[in-house]
Amino acid sequence: MKKPVFNFSPGPAMLPAEVMLQAQNEFLNFQGTGMSIMEVSHRSAIFQQVIDKAEADLRKLMSIPSDYKVLFLQGGASTQFAMIPLNLMRKGKAVFLDTGAWSQKAIAEASKYGQTHIVASSKDSNFSYVPSFEKEEIDQEADYLHLTQNNTIFGTRIHSLPVSGKVPLVSDMSSMLLSEEVRVEDYGLIYAGAQKNIGPSGLTIVILREDLIGYAQYSCPKMLNYQTHVDKASMFNTPPTFPIYMTGLVFAWTLKEGGVKAMEEKNMAKSSLLYEYLDQSDFYRPDIASPHRSRMNVCFHTPSPELDIALAKFADEEGCKFIKGHRSVGGIRASLYNAMSIEGVAYLIEILKQFKRRA
Amino acid sequence: MKKPVFNFSPGPAMLPAEVMLQAQNEFLNFQGTGMSIMEVSHRSAIFQQVIDKAEADLRKLMSIPSDYKVLFLQGGASTQFAMIPLNLMRKGKAVFLDTGAWSQKAIAEASKYGQTHIVASSKDSNFSYVPSFEKEEIDQEADYLHLTQNNTIFGTRIHSLPVSGKVPLVSDMSSMLLSEEVRVEDYGLIYAGAQKNIGPSGLTIVILREDLIGYAQYSCPKMLNYQTHVDKASMFNTPPTFPIYMTGLVFAWTLKEGGVKAMEEKNMAKSSLLYEYLDQSDFYRPDIASPHRSRMNVCFHTPSPELDIALAKFADEEGCKFIKGHRSVGGIRASLYNAMSIEGVAYLIEILKQFKRRA
Repeated sequence: MKKPVFNFSPGPAMLPAEVMLQAQNEFLNFQGTGMSIMEVSHRSAIFQQVIDKAEADLRKLMSIPSDYKVLFLQGGASTQFAMIPLNLMRKGKAVFLDTGAWSQKAIAEASKYGQTHIVASSKDSNFSYVPSFEKEEIDQEADYLHLTQNNTIFGTRIHSLPVSGKVPLVSDMSSMLLSEEVRVEDYGLIYAGAQKNIGPSGLTIVILREDLIGYAQYSCPKMLNYQTHVDKASMFNTPPTFPIYMTGLVFAWTLKEGGVKAMEEKNMAKSSLLYEYLDQSDFYRPDIASPHRSRMNVCFHTPSPELDIALAKFADEEGCKFIKGHRSVGGIRASLYNAMSIEGVAYLIEILKQFKRRA
Repeated sequence: MKKPVFNFSPGPAMLPAEVMLQAQNEFLNFQGTGMSIMEVSHRSAIFQQVIDKAEADLRKLMSIPSDYKVLFLQGGASTQFAMIPLNLMRKGKAVFLDTGAWSQKAIAEASKYGQTHIVASSKDSNFSYVPSFEKEEIDQEADYLHLTQNNTIFGTRIHSLPVSGKVPLVSDMSSMLLSEEVRVEDYGLIYAGAQKNIGPSGLTIVILREDLIGYAQYSCPKMLNYQTHVDKASMFNTPPTFPIYMTGLVFAWTLKEGGVKAMEEKNMAKSSLLYEYLDQSDFYRPDIASPHRSRMNVCFHTPSPELDIALAKFADEEGCKFIKGHRSVGGIRASLYNAMSIEGVAYLIEILKQFKRRA
């Protein structure tokens, strides 16, 4: 019998099977036009409907208030690391919570454009937890407080949002957007690369409050100025049309499946199942302590680096793809984005049990 | 009988039917992996092979010398308008040939980062020709001379490359890359959005000479520094994997079809056929005089703006899609990229004849 394939890639990651089938079916002939959606002008009515529906569905999914803009951009979170300070650093200072590689990249970029202050860091323990801090520790004159809300590499998650006073929260939600409910009103700006929960790579979603727009530094490249994209509704230049189309299909699927609340419940069930197995095991060791654990990226180790490698290979052969940990952490990482089924997680646990017996 | 569909979109544009079929066939299961190429990690061996082959095929197609780097980036030509001066303006001045909207956008961005000088412009005649100039008019201390080698909006093409002395040529080849043979050695940097001759939107190709790399301005965002992407072979962050895959398929198809020389011959035949019809017509009026004509974007007018609109509508109904001219020029534009067949052009001419008889 052919083995099942369950894709635990940290991103680009698996997409819902229904979405993939629909995209394949209409790949050569989109809605009877005789053309692929990939082949039509972004200025056509055909594509305009696609992007408009994608935005409307995302607004519905996240209950995005009307004073927030939604942008479909390129360049990934790495481009946002520069775009955010170039646009938001009006007073020239920003505060960061340092929870690992992504935070640090954001800090390094922001340092070119203004002052940066790290309010708390878990560097001392190789980012195995999310450090806490008090509102009083945040300079109330800062332009923003930056968070990596879920850390894909270390498998941490910020479980309670810090109170920042009048300082807007800026959150990198790359590996958690639409995986759990968030109150958009609590943020000044939310950004995410699409290639985790919501679509293929090559698309970046930015949700930002209107009053933060229009203050870019003079040297800010036009393409890195939020105002440029707000003025032209994400069509200042040719957008990544196929990734937007795919992401739109995922948004529609997410709505059909019950929305973000349903995803959150499913994601809690999936991650709990796996963490519970790991916690009771005398063989596997989860990297992160309970309150700081990501629901998206479950990171753990076997008793040795050699066994980690052997497990990743064994799991791959058995149909559990891409569970090798990030090169900077080692070990094992299973990414359980929205499209991963509970059956996939149960199957992974079976494979972990088999490997343990063999080891 | 069902009408044929021929897609004359200026971009995103039609792709070869064979490529689209292959992509559809392996959309759910890439090379027996049980996963879509869209769903695999960019750090996987599966994707590494895809991007390596795409680069190797492009190098073969264009005979790219070994001292030139090939980058797969995001953000389109509009991002290059800033990236080029941020990286190349070591002495702080650049020279531009102004052939229309795209040149002007490049000039506006470069002006933020250094001095710009326009060596020649055809603005006086709404960019209906490519102005010439002498080598002596180019400041030999300039960092580069920028050209829009084919202008998609006005339908012009630079038919003979200017002699620039020791000043590197930087060419926007967005709407002509792989449509005709070019000598890469003649350029310092070549860039192109993929969504015309070579792939879907969301991917930008940059080919640049090694000695130009490593001199970015301090304020240059890390993602806009060529060095960043050279150091990591276009994988500093998650690249647009599916657009790279599609573009790789188009490169392989182009090789199979006989390479760039074969494309050039086919494109000359296609554009000549259409221009010859327009030239002998007493109804249609080509916008551009013979030596300056684009082979990719054939722009013309009927006797009136009302008839232009009526023609675009009639052609659309008859299966010739997206022939409306750019909103800043009006009239009609038929884009004849590599994937367009000579049969498509012959069919368009039939439709033009029918419309003329009806009008």
